[in-house]
Amino acid sequence: MHAHRQLAALALLAGLGAAPAFAATDTQAPTPTRAELLAKSTAGEWRTPDPHNLLVMQLPTGRVLIELAPDFTPLHAANIRTLARQHYFDGLAIVRVQDNFVTQWGDPAGDDKSKRRSLGEAHDTLPPEYTRPIDPKLAWTPLPDGDVYAPEVGFSNGFPAARDPADGQTWLTHCYGMVGVGRDYGPETGNGSELYVVIGQAPRRLDRNLAIAGRVLEGMPLLSALPRGTGPMGFYDKAAQRTPIQSVRLASELPPAQRPAVQVLRTDSATFAALLDAQRHRHDAFYKVSSGKVGLCSVEVPVREAKPAH
Amino acid sequence: MHAHRQLAALALLAGLGAAPAFAATDTQAPTPTRAELLAKSTAGEWRTPDPHNLLVMQLPTGRVLIELAPDFTPLHAANIRTLARQHYFDGLAIVRVQDNFVTQWGDPAGDDKSKRRSLGEAHDTLPPEYTRPIDPKLAWTPLPDGDVYAPEVGFSNGFPAARDPADGQTWLTHCYGMVGVGRDYGPETGNGSELYVVIGQAPRRLDRNLAIAGRVLEGMPLLSALPRGTGPMGFYDKAAQRTPIQSVRLASELPPAQRPAVQVLRTDSATFAALLDAQRHRHDAFYKVSSGKVGLCSVEVPVREAKPAH
Repeated sequence: MHAHRQLAALALLAGLGAAPAFAATDTQAPTPTRAELLAKSTAGEWRTPDPHNLLVMQLPTGRVLIELAPDFTPLHAANIRTLARQHYFDGLAIVRVQDNFVTQWGDPAGDDKSKRRSLGEAHDTLPPEYTRPIDPKLAWTPLPDGDVYAPEVGFSNGFPAARDPADGQTWLTHCYGMVGVGRDYGPETGNGSELYVVIGQAPRRLDRNLAIAGRVLEGMPLLSALPRGTGPMGFYDKAAQRTPIQSVRLASELPPAQRPAVQVLRTDSATFAALLDAQRHRHDAFYKVSSGKVGLCSVEVPVREAKPAH
Repeated sequence: MHAHRQLAALALLAGLGAAPAFAATDTQAPTPTRAELLAKSTAGEWRTPDPHNLLVMQLPTGRVLIELAPDFTPLHAANIRTLARQHYFDGLAIVRVQDNFVTQWGDPAGDDKSKRRSLGEAHDTLPPEYTRPIDPKLAWTPLPDGDVYAPEVGFSNGFPAARDPADGQTWLTHCYGMVGVGRDYGPETGNGSELYVVIGQAPRRLDRNLAIAGRVLEGMPLLSALPRGTGPMGFYDKAAQRTPIQSVRLASELPPAQRPAVQVLRTDSATFAALLDAQRHRHDAFYKVSSGKVGLCSVEVPVREAKPAH
């Protein structure tokens, strides 16, 4: 009975698995599961990331895919592409894992300029790109459920974002799986050679204070389940604790056959809207009360392996 | 320069480390750090958890401390105490780790009743205790910053909580580190023999649908950094992947010298209010924009080792 207990609770908690038979006394049909809604999506509701914006990071444990967000941080995207083309990240490492906060990678040599790897053709400093002007040409699907931190939140081509009509600015938000650009004190000190990913509760206080370069589409467990560093701020004390980065490549630099075949559900699609609605108003054999609302960072934008084109 | 970049960014992101010298052109003093504010706290602002409510879970990797929350879930606390006194959990295991969701432990035998451990004197079913009536005698420190999911949020003796004046109910919330009671479909099917802890973005949709038994005070990295299970819903496929639970004891059952000496900052204290304010209005060499608000689940209630009484 207890595996059933586990599975029942968790099938529904996770929004996975088959929907159970609903209690006969209940007249309302159970809310469709995420899997059921996705199964009914159409091909046109899925978007294939531009290989020019797709980073493939190879770790000893597997592959991490990151989609860059040039609509919001074009100069950072360009610099990261330059670094990837130079194979800058190959042989660098994950240097920091702080619980309920971030996993960070870059050059373990730190500020030792004599040992630190050259940025080559990439820029050492960049304009901040923490926010950008709201523009009607920029994709925007509002999430009307409210937010503690920003006047308006929503999605822009699959990325969680916020905006403030009062100052006309919009920005990407620090949700789980979002990839940010580490920097020093000065706002121009980030360049994309040190990146972090959010692995815990969304640290929204960082919004508008750091450039967000993109989002992890695949491989989050390879970054989130690493041993936490025991040095200050989760830096690893010993070199042996670091996870080496075997390579980082731009998908567009790979032979077509080697490019990852992933697709992201369009956040302006009817299926995405249906997923949000199912999350707000879930009614089934497990849930006793529906939340009525969905928080921006509680939305997981679906990613799938694309079917091979035969 | 890059280790400096890392450290600077992260000292402030993490709220750790010494405050940097503030830019000379800035006339406003930098916001004190968390460490600085805690250093000024008084002894009376810290609360020592009742050993009757403190669970000590020993894993091969270290110790996890969980404070039970009998103000909200008294029947579950009593049942979990009964289970701990019987040494029920000793030799059971962590059976599930689902990325950005929960780590769960209990009896790996699942629903095989012939193999499943007896609950002994503990109850197999309990009333749900998902919410309880608001009561002026129940501690309540409101957090006025707003919330997506509940009309009112705040803290009750160190636990994040919500309430709805419309129906007169209050409940604990599924924030990072909160420990919930797994159950089957029926609302009376949880008993505390299977517990989960939140290891990712707060799954607030679970609020009022599951009983929350307490909060992890120490040892979260031992639960959050485990390999994710690759079976459905993050269950481990193979027995060898599970982390064994060596023992779970109620601190009150341990000899006084062996009881963990931890203290929790009172959430009705001036120092806690100052920490919230520093988080909302942070202004220092790193932060360019302060968030102005703080979300309920972005607040980490401080825990410290108590000084030994000599």
